[in-house]
Amino acid sequence: MLEDKNQEKTSLEELGEFGLIQHLTQNFEIQQSSTVKGIGDDAAVLYFSDKKVVVSTDMLVEGVHFDLSYMPLKHLGYKSVMVNLSDIYAMNAVATQITVSIAVSNRFPLEALEEFYAGVALAAKIYKVDLIGGDTTSSTKGMIISVTAIGEANEADITYRSGAKPNDLLVVSGDLGGAYCGLQVLEREKEVFKVNPNNQPDLSPYTYIIERQLKPESRKDVKGLLAKLEIQPTAMIDISDGLSSEILHICKASEVGCNLYEDKIPLDPTVISACEEFKIDSTLVALSGGEDYELLFTIDQKDFPKIKGNPHFSVIGHMTDHKEGAHLISRANTKIPITAQGWNSFT
Amino acid sequence: MLEDKNQEKTSLEELGEFGLIQHLTQNFEIQQSSTVKGIGDDAAVLYFSDKKVVVSTDMLVEGVHFDLSYMPLKHLGYKSVMVNLSDIYAMNAVATQITVSIAVSNRFPLEALEEFYAGVALAAKIYKVDLIGGDTTSSTKGMIISVTAIGEANEADITYRSGAKPNDLLVVSGDLGGAYCGLQVLEREKEVFKVNPNNQPDLSPYTYIIERQLKPESRKDVKGLLAKLEIQPTAMIDISDGLSSEILHICKASEVGCNLYEDKIPLDPTVISACEEFKIDSTLVALSGGEDYELLFTIDQKDFPKIKGNPHFSVIGHMTDHKEGAHLISRANTKIPITAQGWNSFT
Repeated sequence: MLEDKNQEKTSLEELGEFGLIQHLTQNFEIQQSSTVKGIGDDAAVLYFSDKKVVVSTDMLVEGVHFDLSYMPLKHLGYKSVMVNLSDIYAMNAVATQITVSIAVSNRFPLEALEEFYAGVALAAKIYKVDLIGGDTTSSTKGMIISVTAIGEANEADITYRSGAKPNDLLVVSGDLGGAYCGLQVLEREKEVFKVNPNNQPDLSPYTYIIERQLKPESRKDVKGLLAKLEIQPTAMIDISDGLSSEILHICKASEVGCNLYEDKIPLDPTVISACEEFKIDSTLVALSGGEDYELLFTIDQKDFPKIKGNPHFSVIGHMTDHKEGAHLISRANTKIPITAQGWNSFT
Repeated sequence: MLEDKNQEKTSLEELGEFGLIQHLTQNFEIQQSSTVKGIGDDAAVLYFSDKKVVVSTDMLVEGVHFDLSYMPLKHLGYKSVMVNLSDIYAMNAVATQITVSIAVSNRFPLEALEEFYAGVALAAKIYKVDLIGGDTTSSTKGMIISVTAIGEANEADITYRSGAKPNDLLVVSGDLGGAYCGLQVLEREKEVFKVNPNNQPDLSPYTYIIERQLKPESRKDVKGLLAKLEIQPTAMIDISDGLSSEILHICKASEVGCNLYEDKIPLDPTVISACEEFKIDSTLVALSGGEDYELLFTIDQKDFPKIKGNPHFSVIGHMTDHKEGAHLISRANTKIPITAQGWNSFT
């Protein structure tokens, strides 16, 4: 699909690095007042006045984090931005700028990079972040993407992982496990395709979970939703590696324990049916699947009436004393220690 | 040298991503008052008060930007930081923070990453920048490094590429061509080593140029030197791709032309002798060699007495009207159009 077999395609060599960056970024518009100068000098210039600045960065490697045989490049560009914005939103901050660096082998023609940047541009437009820099270079193998996201927040709004107190409620946005189930469907279809390239799969029952994998959204809205409810979260983290791993991060940083209730974990019906089909445990998928890019946060117990029944949020447990440790309370009411089984690229 | 043949070495798999980041960053200290929260949450938190913030990012790919057969990992860590800080100094700003992301294949043991981070730590300590984030992940081939550098400056100090005026003087810090000559020596020794691994080369005559290639410094000092001279540069850029390429960037951004005098280009005696030995033209090396990480800037002509004879700086030409174009005035007093022959990773 991506090999440069078609000689009519434009090779990257023709443009050179400067021409390439200029070509790929020409349609990006500045939307944030904090961007003084975007692309085009040695560095971008920003101004945040009295706001605090938050910065996060992530790297995505072909063959490790994504598989181009089922990941369209436009989706990949979009997802690369989402993965990074999610970290900004997890600070209860507003994302304002991104830099996007990409290294590609010469099997990628210009048109492939245009697709990738179209996805970046779409994400930037929808999420109102400015592309302010980046690097475009060659690799000896495959595609490597590095994104840095920048955001702003008033000091009082910034939410660390470390602010949870015993008895705080544990809340998650949206639902969990979808991205992992979507990946299972895509991996299966890839195997089917290898055996029978003419097979026309009907993936419509899996639309939701495939979208969760290929085109995730990050929870820009949570900050506003909580502000409207007049809730100040006490700790917050995004769910990139799986619920169990993120819970343990909050517990460790906040020096608290946690009781997580299995029957409270929000699962989309499509996730439940996919788990049945793939014969995998849906709780395990939610705990360890990762890539959901929902936000996990804690709130003071007094805020329970404000959030109860809210369609965006699920109260899934409560924090306890540090000594009690972190546990899953199963449907059968047994107490199972939570261990990190989050994703590790080195295994 | 780096293959994980020694089974006593620690594999990255054992530590996992979180353990790895924690292990590699444990000895970094926060030095900048603008760093509110460094590594350890979803994002770092910074505060710049009324200062402007500058941001730049660069990616370095094994086999494209560096060759581990002669680049020690500690030097590589150091150089990766230098390359990025140079862009911050080129805005006439003070570098304050960096993020460092690295993807490595499983042939790299933990000890290799420790070496790399030792170089990053040394650079961070000497240049007083805080490591505030990053990502550590696996690659399918080789090592890929992505660094984002952040700096601060008062609005009045920020120097863009676009501020040069006709008749401004063109000035460069330090000397040029050393990094390219050092690379030629290293490439030659690599070939010699392939033929005769027992050869013990005497590289002492090449110390300066090899250091320029393997352990470049970035010009943190220029901002202070110019302030002391009471000179406000009108345009500035760093020399990463070669003098000709950078001159053309200033000319384009500032809409001016330029006369560059060949006999004014600062060359170290080691560069001149290496060029003779390798039978390459030293002017061409300075124009197109790249990787010198010196600063190229323009100043008002009235400031000439202040900078004349300063050992840190060389006045190498002057800006002209846009219509006149950019030219090299050779020693033989011929006028040769300057064309960009800077480095392009895609060729």
